[in-house]
Amino acid sequence: MICNNRQMKKFITTLALMSVATLSQATTLVPTKPKEVFPSPNEIVAAAPANEWVAIAASDLLVMDLAPDAKGKARRVVIQLMPAPFSQGWVGNIRKLAAAKWWDGLAIVRVQDNYVAQWGDPDGEDAVKAKKLPAGLVTVPESAYLTPFTEGTIKFKTGKNSFSLIEEFSKDFPRNLEDNHVIVYSDSYKNYTAFSRSFPISFKGQLTTEPTNNYRVTPTTVWPIHCYGMVGVGRNMSPDTGTGAELYTVIGHAPRHLDRNIALVGRVIEGIEHLSSLPRGTGALGFYEKPEERTAITSVRIGQSISDLPAYEYLSTESATFSKYADARANRRDPFFIQPAGGADICNIPVPVRRVKK
Amino acid sequence: MICNNRQMKKFITTLALMSVATLSQATTLVPTKPKEVFPSPNEIVAAAPANEWVAIAASDLLVMDLAPDAKGKARRVVIQLMPAPFSQGWVGNIRKLAAAKWWDGLAIVRVQDNYVAQWGDPDGEDAVKAKKLPAGLVTVPESAYLTPFTEGTIKFKTGKNSFSLIEEFSKDFPRNLEDNHVIVYSDSYKNYTAFSRSFPISFKGQLTTEPTNNYRVTPTTVWPIHCYGMVGVGRNMSPDTGTGAELYTVIGHAPRHLDRNIALVGRVIEGIEHLSSLPRGTGALGFYEKPEERTAITSVRIGQSISDLPAYEYLSTESATFSKYADARANRRDPFFIQPAGGADICNIPVPVRRVKK
Repeated sequence: MICNNRQMKKFITTLALMSVATLSQATTLVPTKPKEVFPSPNEIVAAAPANEWVAIAASDLLVMDLAPDAKGKARRVVIQLMPAPFSQGWVGNIRKLAAAKWWDGLAIVRVQDNYVAQWGDPDGEDAVKAKKLPAGLVTVPESAYLTPFTEGTIKFKTGKNSFSLIEEFSKDFPRNLEDNHVIVYSDSYKNYTAFSRSFPISFKGQLTTEPTNNYRVTPTTVWPIHCYGMVGVGRNMSPDTGTGAELYTVIGHAPRHLDRNIALVGRVIEGIEHLSSLPRGTGALGFYEKPEERTAITSVRIGQSISDLPAYEYLSTESATFSKYADARANRRDPFFIQPAGGADICNIPVPVRRVKK
Repeated sequence: MICNNRQMKKFITTLALMSVATLSQATTLVPTKPKEVFPSPNEIVAAAPANEWVAIAASDLLVMDLAPDAKGKARRVVIQLMPAPFSQGWVGNIRKLAAAKWWDGLAIVRVQDNYVAQWGDPDGEDAVKAKKLPAGLVTVPESAYLTPFTEGTIKFKTGKNSFSLIEEFSKDFPRNLEDNHVIVYSDSYKNYTAFSRSFPISFKGQLTTEPTNNYRVTPTTVWPIHCYGMVGVGRNMSPDTGTGAELYTVIGHAPRHLDRNIALVGRVIEGIEHLSSLPRGTGALGFYEKPEERTAITSVRIGQSISDLPAYEYLSTESATFSKYADARANRRDPFFIQPAGGADICNIPVPVRRVKK
C-alpha cells in the first residue's frame, strides 16, 4: 500500500508537470495500470470503529440558543469546553455565568469578516448600564495562557505510518518512532503543534536528534491555538485577562497571532454557521453600530440541564483512524485530487465530531 | 530599535511566564523604563508613502453585482483578476464570459461553511437545461496549474530587517540578504511561500546554504495559493480543469490542499462579506437544496465598463512598508499584545487594498 502510494504520487506529479500533448500520450501509454482509488478523509472517518470515538460529557458542553432567524428557524450553537489542564480558571467562570443565566437576553455584538463573532453585554463598557456579573468569578493571571508541561499530562506521539509523504519531503519533521498516532510538526509559527485531548495545541520544546534521522521533542510549555471555531475570552488591555463573560469564536483564517495573548476556552462543535453567516458589523472591529443589528441570545446553559440535547462524540486524536484521516488531509489522493499537498497546517485538520443517539 | 525590540520581547516573554505575584513585583521594579509603543499593522499601512501603492487597472477587475439583500441594500463583490504569468488561460475565458454577460441571471449556488461560496449556472450539470457557454473559450491543460520559474518573471526577496525575530527562532528560514522586502519562508505545506505581484504564491526550489548562515532558494515551479478571499475555478474530475464559468471564493481557513489541484484566477478585494455571510447550503458540499435559497447574480462585468466604480490600489508587496507590515503581523507588539507570535503563515498576512478617489 505504501509502495503503491508512492508510485501513484510520482505518477501524478509527473503528469501535472507535463504539457497537454505529453499528458495525452501518458494517458495512452498506461491504460493497463488500473487507477488505485483512495478513500477521502470523510470516508476514512466513516469507517472508524466505535471504540475510537470519545463521548463528550454533556457537562462539558455550553449550549447557546439565539433568537430564531428571520424565517423563524431555531439557532443553536453547541460549544465543547476546553478540558484540563487548559484555561480552567476561565472555564470555571463560564460555568458560573451559565448557572446564573447571565447571558440570557444579551447579544452577539460583533461580527468581523475573516476574524471573529463575539457575544456578551452590549453595555459592558458602560459603568452605569453594564449588567452585574455573578459573584464568585475568579481573576485568572496571564501566566495561565501557558500550561507548563508535566510528564503524563500531555502525550505527544507521531505515527510511523501517518504523514509518510511528509517524511520524504521534510527532514525537520519531528517524530518519535517509539509511539504511534497524533501529529507533531512545526509550522510557520515556529513552534510545534499537535492535538491534545482532541484540541489543537502548540508547544515549545527541545528538539533532539536521534539515531537513524529520527527526532524527539521534549515540551516545556503548551498552549491551545486559534483555529476556526475555537472559542476565546474577550479582554481589555493587559494585564486584564477577561472573565469569560465576553466570548468570541473564530470565523476566518486562523488568527494565530492571538495565541498566548488571549485565553481559549473551547470550540464550536455544532451550529457555527449561526455565527459565521451573521451580517458583518459596520463599526470599528466589526461591532454593530445599531442595537437592532445585534442577534439576541435567548439562553446559554451547560449541556446537562438541556433535556433535548443529543449526545456528541469526537474521533480520538490518538486513534489509528485519526492518523489516517490527518494523513489524508495532508495528502489528498481521493479521485478529485491530482497533486497531494504534502503537508497540512493543524487548523486544516479539523477534528471530526458527530451526533449519536442517546 | 532592533535592540529595543529584543529587550521588550524578552521582558514580555518573562512576564507571561511569571505568576501573578511576581508579575506585580516586576511591574513595580521597572517603573522608570517607559513602555515603548509599537504601531499596529494597520497603523504601519496608514503611514505608507503614496509611491508604495500600486493602482489596479479597472480592466483587471471583475465586478459582480448580486440582487439587493432583504433590506434592499446593494451587494457588490469586486475581484482583482490574477496577473500574468498565472492562470491566464482561465482569466481570458472569464473576460469572454463577462463580455458575453454570461453570469447575468445566474446565482450563488453553494455556500459551505469554513470552505467556499460558489457561483455559476444552477443547471450546469443538466445537459438539456444548462446555459450555453459563449464561443471562444479555451480548454486549459492541468499543466497550467504550475508556472515554470524563469528568471526575471518573478523576484523573490527577503528583507534584512523584516521578520528579524523569526531569524532568532528559526535556522531554516530561507533568506537572500542581497535583496530587500518580500517574505520567503517555509510553512506546513513543505514548500516556500512568498508574494508575487501582490498575490500569495508557493514554489518549489533548491535551497542552498551560503556563508554566515544565510540561505538562498532558486525556484523551479511556482503556483498561486488558496488564502481567504482567493477566487478559483470549479471543475469536474481530472483531466477537466474548468472553463472559468463556475467560480468560487474561499470563506474559511485556507484550504491549501486545493493548491495545484484547481486554477486560481483572482481574489476578492471588496465585498466578500456579501458571499461569506450568506446562509450555508444544507445539501451535500453546501449546495442549496431549493432554488429560492440561491442569491441571484444581477450582472458580472469587467471593471472598465462600470462608470461608478472607484479606483483601487494595493500596497506593493515589494515595498519597505509591506515588509514592516508583514513583520508586525508576525510579531504583534502593539499595545493589546503581550506575546509576539514569532511568525505568520502567508494567509495570515492579507495584502492591504484601498479605495482611492479617481
